[in-house]
Amino acid sequence: MSDQVSNEACPLTEVLDHVAGKWSIGILVAAAHGPVRFTELERTITGISRRMLTLNLRKLERDGLLIRTVYPTVPPKVEYSLTPMARELHATLAGLVGWAERHRADITAARATYDAAAAPAS
Amino acid sequence: MSDQVSNEACPLTEVLDHVAGKWSIGILVAAAHGPVRFTELERTITGISRRMLTLNLRKLERDGLLIRTVYPTVPPKVEYSLTPMARELHATLAGLVGWAERHRADITAARATYDAAAAPAS
Repeated sequence: MSDQVSNEACPLTEVLDHVAGKWSIGILVAAAHGPVRFTELERTITGISRRMLTLNLRKLERDGLLIRTVYPTVPPKVEYSLTPMARELHATLAGLVGWAERHRADITAARATYDAAAAPAS
Repeated sequence: MSDQVSNEACPLTEVLDHVAGKWSIGILVAAAHGPVRFTELERTITGISRRMLTLNLRKLERDGLLIRTVYPTVPPKVEYSLTPMARELHATLAGLVGWAERHRADITAARATYDAAAAPAS
């Protein structure tokens, strides 16, 4: 990356605007290993409401990240899976997850040090 | 990544909470190639206010991502540079930027297709 923020940060900001929501990421992770049904997603993603799940699935489908397949059964079976482009994104996000896991304790320690230095001497 | 969202999405959500702000990313990118001064950051990062820059610099310093060095000159010179942990993050973000750049047109096309299918037949 060069230091031209205007050219470079933009696409990233765009991506993050789409996928940075914790529900979007949760859905991508939950659907990463094969087609999943709505009820599975609802069960796997702790704390998501039915409405938020519906909205996020629609957004991810619209962005070309999820494929929604409807099987003509009674009742109809609907499955969601990642598009090739979403699989690539998932792999990239794994790098970020790794970073976060490796440095979680470092960040906590850095904050404690910073806050201790900033605290007024008694 | 496994499909256990509760275990996995968390650290990532945490990272994104810190760095997903477009200003934080802009600052990390702008400071990636060596120490920078406040005024350089202000000039490089289009649209950032002095106050937002100050707040974000403080946050990144607190998280252990930026080092703030004060030189005892008159007036004092202050420089910001990335910590080793922030350099690693920067490299990881480059992967996301790459993905965003490669797929920007795909996302736009996917949306157009989706919206066309969703539009009422006239």
